[in-house]
Amino acid sequence: MTQQAGPIRLGMVGGGQGAFIGGVHRIAARMDGHFQLVAGALSASPAKARESAAALGLAPDRSYDSYEAMAEAEAARPDGIQAVSIVTPNHMHAGPAVAFLKRGIHVICDKPLSGTMEQAEELARAVGETSALFILTHNYSGYPMVRQARAMVEAGELGRIRVVQVEYPQDWLTEATEETGGNKQAEWRTDPARSGAGGSIGDIGTHAHHLAAFVTGLELESLAADLQSFVPGRRVDDNAHILLRYKDGARGMLWSSQVAPGNENALRLRVYGEKGGLEWAQEDPNYLWFTPFGQPKRLLTRAGSGAGAPANAVSRTPGGHPEGYLEAFANIYGEAAGAIRAALAGQRPDPGLLPGIEAGMAGMRFIDAALRSSRADAAWTKL
Amino acid sequence: MTQQAGPIRLGMVGGGQGAFIGGVHRIAARMDGHFQLVAGALSASPAKARESAAALGLAPDRSYDSYEAMAEAEAARPDGIQAVSIVTPNHMHAGPAVAFLKRGIHVICDKPLSGTMEQAEELARAVGETSALFILTHNYSGYPMVRQARAMVEAGELGRIRVVQVEYPQDWLTEATEETGGNKQAEWRTDPARSGAGGSIGDIGTHAHHLAAFVTGLELESLAADLQSFVPGRRVDDNAHILLRYKDGARGMLWSSQVAPGNENALRLRVYGEKGGLEWAQEDPNYLWFTPFGQPKRLLTRAGSGAGAPANAVSRTPGGHPEGYLEAFANIYGEAAGAIRAALAGQRPDPGLLPGIEAGMAGMRFIDAALRSSRADAAWTKL
Amino acid sequence: MTQQAGPIRLGMVGGGQGAFIGGVHRIAARMDGHFQLVAGALSASPAKARESAAALGLAPDRSYDSYEAMAEAEAARPDGIQAVSIVTPNHMHAGPAVAFLKRGIHVICDKPLSGTMEQAEELARAVGETSALFILTHNYSGYPMVRQARAMVEAGELGRIRVVQVEYPQDWLTEATEETGGNKQAEWRTDPARSGAGGSIGDIGTHAHHLAAFVTGLELESLAADLQSFVPGRRVDDNAHILLRYKDGARGMLWSSQVAPGNENALRLRVYGEKGGLEWAQEDPNYLWFTPFGQPKRLLTRAGSGAGAPANAVSRTPGGHPEGYLEAFANIYGEAAGAIRAALAGQRPDPGLLPGIEAGMAGMRFIDAALRSSRADAAWTKL
Amino acid sequence: MTQQAGPIRLGMVGGGQGAFIGGVHRIAARMDGHFQLVAGALSASPAKARESAAALGLAPDRSYDSYEAMAEAEAARPDGIQAVSIVTPNHMHAGPAVAFLKRGIHVICDKPLSGTMEQAEELARAVGETSALFILTHNYSGYPMVRQARAMVEAGELGRIRVVQVEYPQDWLTEATEETGGNKQAEWRTDPARSGAGGSIGDIGTHAHHLAAFVTGLELESLAADLQSFVPGRRVDDNAHILLRYKDGARGMLWSSQVAPGNENALRLRVYGEKGGLEWAQEDPNYLWFTPFGQPKRLLTRAGSGAGAPANAVSRTPGGHPEGYLEAFANIYGEAAGAIRAALAGQRPDPGLLPGIEAGMAGMRFIDAALRSSRADAAWTKL
Repeated sequence: MTQQAGPIRLGMVGGGQGAFIGGVHRIAARMDGHFQLVAGALSASPAKARESAAALGLAPDRSYDSYEAMAEAEAARPDGIQAVSIVTPNHMHAGPAVAFLKRGIHVICDKPLSGTMEQAEELARAVGETSALFILTHNYSGYPMVRQARAMVEAGELGRIRVVQVEYPQDWLTEATEETGGNKQAEWRTDPARSGAGGSIGDIGTHAHHLAAFVTGLELESLAADLQSFVPGRRVDDNAHILLRYKDGARGMLWSSQVAPGNENALRLRVYGEKGGLEWAQEDPNYLWFTPFGQPKRLLTRAGSGAGAPANAVSRTPGGHPEGYLEAFANIYGEAAGAIRAALAGQRPDPGLLPGIEAGMAGMRFIDAALRSSRADAAWTKL
Repeated sequence: MTQQAGPIRLGMVGGGQGAFIGGVHRIAARMDGHFQLVAGALSASPAKARESAAALGLAPDRSYDSYEAMAEAEAARPDGIQAVSIVTPNHMHAGPAVAFLKRGIHVICDKPLSGTMEQAEELARAVGETSALFILTHNYSGYPMVRQARAMVEAGELGRIRVVQVEYPQDWLTEATEETGGNKQAEWRTDPARSGAGGSIGDIGTHAHHLAAFVTGLELESLAADLQSFVPGRRVDDNAHILLRYKDGARGMLWSSQVAPGNENALRLRVYGEKGGLEWAQEDPNYLWFTPFGQPKRLLTRAGSGAGAPANAVSRTPGGHPEGYLEAFANIYGEAAGAIRAALAGQRPDPGLLPGIEAGMAGMRFIDAALRSSRADAAWTKL
Repeated sequence: MTQQAGPIRLGMVGGGQGAFIGGVHRIAARMDGHFQLVAGALSASPAKARESAAALGLAPDRSYDSYEAMAEAEAARPDGIQAVSIVTPNHMHAGPAVAFLKRGIHVICDKPLSGTMEQAEELARAVGETSALFILTHNYSGYPMVRQARAMVEAGELGRIRVVQVEYPQDWLTEATEETGGNKQAEWRTDPARSGAGGSIGDIGTHAHHLAAFVTGLELESLAADLQSFVPGRRVDDNAHILLRYKDGARGMLWSSQVAPGNENALRLRVYGEKGGLEWAQEDPNYLWFTPFGQPKRLLTRAGSGAGAPANAVSRTPGGHPEGYLEAFANIYGEAAGAIRAALAGQRPDPGLLPGIEAGMAGMRFIDAALRSSRADAAWTKL
Repeated sequence: MTQQAGPIRLGMVGGGQGAFIGGVHRIAARMDGHFQLVAGALSASPAKARESAAALGLAPDRSYDSYEAMAEAEAARPDGIQAVSIVTPNHMHAGPAVAFLKRGIHVICDKPLSGTMEQAEELARAVGETSALFILTHNYSGYPMVRQARAMVEAGELGRIRVVQVEYPQDWLTEATEETGGNKQAEWRTDPARSGAGGSIGDIGTHAHHLAAFVTGLELESLAADLQSFVPGRRVDDNAHILLRYKDGARGMLWSSQVAPGNENALRLRVYGEKGGLEWAQEDPNYLWFTPFGQPKRLLTRAGSGAGAPANAVSRTPGGHPEGYLEAFANIYGEAAGAIRAALAGQRPDPGLLPGIEAGMAGMRFIDAALRSSRADAAWTKL
């Protein structure tokens, strides 16, 4: 069975008007021509679901009021969706994911895995019981220079890793935006019922945690977390200070914050080993700084000097033509498409570097451990 | 007549395997769902054209051996292309453009306008004689923070402009790459028969010239150019030093180079007026530095602090989620789509900020004046 | 009694050939003409002391073999030294300081205060029993833009402080330099007998701790520290990860490291409050980044735009003429000179922002708490 | 005759209260202990001269009302000055310099050499007729990383130089500050009678010209200059755009401006050769960017990674401890001291890299050529 030539037929759960990440997923799916959006349960509100579907050019009969209806109907159509993107708030990840997976429809799901550990475990079971693929969009791992960093660590260019400094500060929740109304993002992301018990730790801390693990290949063993909710009335943490201990002796620090004025989306990773150091910042993603110990710092550039095959494989343009967040996101979709095409062709898909259920469970354990540690006054807590 | 809901049917001339800018145009056309590529004359080599078309999923009967055949056939089809992208080397812009324009097919053409002034003038006549749109992809004008800069100058935030410093250094032609074989880009871009008589001045100097004009709204009156071909045997300039005089008294400098090691694609604009200064760099495009005279420098960020409506209108993601070269290019395609849909609906299209034939002719006059000035030992030369 | 017109007569303990910080103190003392070095006990080795004194142009009879001899002889001379700089390894701070203080000679002492808490307490008693001044060279507090930052926090421009991120990474001890010989700095700074039980935490962590306190005005209440000695055989910590809790609810992180390749002397402070954020980096000290929440980031420059009286008072040149480490150090010496001249004139000296015994004791408590916490597996430990 | 052990006895012409550069020279002379200021004709106003001298602690009998009186009296004293710093406005350089030189007193003179070519030639003759040293403080050549750059070019690390981009923008004369009163610097620097016919071109353009020559070793053959006076009523140029042609085929651009808001003192040099490129910026002087063609850009740091002997020889502190403008200035004074001590000892002084009369004359020819070229509508003009 050869692989399908045209785009993969894609559905979407969530992502109706007013959402943020749904639009990002759609661009990422479309950018390289790998997917075509053909169906959606875009909102819990039927009217909004319909309007959003129409605005996106979906056929009326493929706009659904619920993900259950969509899963059932699409699974029954000969031209039904082959994959689905789940872009709802965190508490609504696991339900739809399970529904599609058990019908053999491949799932691309936004992070974190779910709102609770129970949901996560249910989802993990479903993944274990299906041959459909489950891909979690830890999109920052799609950046070419993150791939470059990972390859360099793997190749031993830094020697044994000693120190990992990772941080993800933002400032958009410096004030009680969730209470003043009108900011849907602020509302659900600070509502434990929808985001899960973690605030900044779940929303962005998990990205930082995943990035550090992705680049270093290290497994986090335990952490000591001091979480704060600085904004009066806030129901989840908006700042997290965490000490990290990795399995083979490396140590680290992780800082996530949504109350750090002057930081838009300042995910940043620094890794130091016996032989050298690496620094990468999400807001300037085409650059990777590499210092072999005792030598001058070097500026490696995406698809330019110093970038190798792992970076170039996920680059579209030559050095100096900056690629960004959407391209990195599209790289995850591109690799997902490759795996899905293989699966559709009856081949054994190679997930490659794609984050999946394991990365998702690791993220959930990270959130859980951070919350437990913080409640225990930052006691060391195993993941 | 209402506007067409689905994507615009697009053809492409050039952009076969091994090309650079064709792939960029395709991503830009597809990213926001505005266009669907359905036909192509992708290469002068029939075999390569067919292979490239197949790789792109075009129907075999819509892959053409020549742009003439494509223009004729597509104009005759009820489902024929509504617009065409011309992404050939410079000497092959005017011919296809004229062929499509006179059949009423809208044209999106890469810059510079053409290889010679004669071709340019012929094309300008064709544009004047059709109601089809002609759009020139001066893509750097699609960057949100370039839009922001333009709006700020227009609003008088810099006061009367005095000084314009614009530069576009690269390093990829530091050695005689065109002679060592295997670099198709180097070959045609240093071949006057294909690129036109200008080398760096046509390839990147025109971008710099356009960017300065786009942001400042100033018209270049005369220039004094010192062009060099540093690499032995090179047939076109690979470095250009140019003094600028604008119509209302502003003065400037333009530097383009392809032999400046350490510069990948370092287009940079600085504008200084009586009341303030602006600085923007293409390789870090989400930032715009603004200094009101006597006050601290401010960092304006795309879709973030300090960015206004003109920038936000062409942004897809919040501040801190970097957008890049492809998004800027897609912004041109997006605005082109808007104008084309209006035209297709029988409305009078508003080109807005889209570069067209006037920008193209200004670029050709710039190249021509620079070449004449340089031959006259950098004498002041009117455009 | 009017203030003395000429330079203050200065002695020095330590700082012989091969030392680092002694030379820095001498330049700092001399740069603005406030001090003249006239005597020294420059080395524990009599021969080296003599040679060093001769190289510095000291009169032979004012080169001493020991600080005790120097203290006695100089106190007895009518033209004896009026102040002394103590620039020995940490374990040799308290002894000389006490010897001079009890003879009424003003002391300028390098940090940290001493090698052990016992020495520190003895020194604190001596300070309490003399009218002579004791000044501790927490030199980073002498940077103009650090003064600017402090003044802005004090003026409420950041609102109530929430988060303090301070770090001081270096890379010079990435390898076991102390064992390979020839690096005197590496040898004593990793020898607990000379540096005290703290390694990076005492050498640079104290700087970070002081800088954060100086700028924010916050008092550290407790900390949770995870110290490491990554280099095999190293006897003190070479990396420290610390969580911080300040008295009024602010939280922070402190990272010091001597094994982070690519970091020369990268002290960096970020402070975030309810209304804004500040960022400063020692390696680029003429800049201070200020973001009022919701507005663009602003670049305040030393003696330039946005810098106010507190910064300008310790600046020598206009903005854009970079001042550095030595000027910041000289600012401490300049303010010390002012206080010493006042004391010499029988006036009550105003220490202003000069770090003294309190800052020194706070630093010792910081080291002590960090060591205790780390031994207790990063348990929260009160200072 | 052995070299003098203590500091060189220094006099100063100009530099009274309210001056800028006089204070800089004094710090530079004192920082490393090489000079002691003992005499001065600090102002043309006798009262101000006296007050300034008193404030600096000069003996009353060594404060002079005129440089002539000072030259005569000091030459006659057995303990008279051995060297003099001339820090007056440009038109007052040559007169004092000649007066001291002909009495055998070494001269350290601020740049540019003089206000007119005639004065410059008179001074050059005086230098030719004396054995006293004449040193011109092109202070930017004292920066360690400028030395590093020069050494790298000399060693062939860039290959044959092709392109030189040098610029020196400031913004302090964006408005007509010279007319609003109270800014002594603005007044004399825009007064042709005091500054010479060149405005920005003389004040800062000469620095840019010298820096480019110093680093590249290239001799400027001809230039094409377009000078402007943007501020209404300004009597000298406040912006200059210049094309450069060097003797061996290298080409360049020079921009100087005092009306570019957002630029404090932004001298910047970029040099590109067949094998690599270098970039240096005065406001961040501890860094030098080096790109060997085809390799990643490298960050060389003062006294740190990648810096060699020429940089280290003029560094005081390890990498990461930023040195600045005053240290670079003091490096010129330090080398001047070495040469003066040798001369005083009857040895043949080695000027090393010290700028002297040749650099001064080159600067005057540069100003003169720029003015002539600009009057001839930017015609190519030989130096």
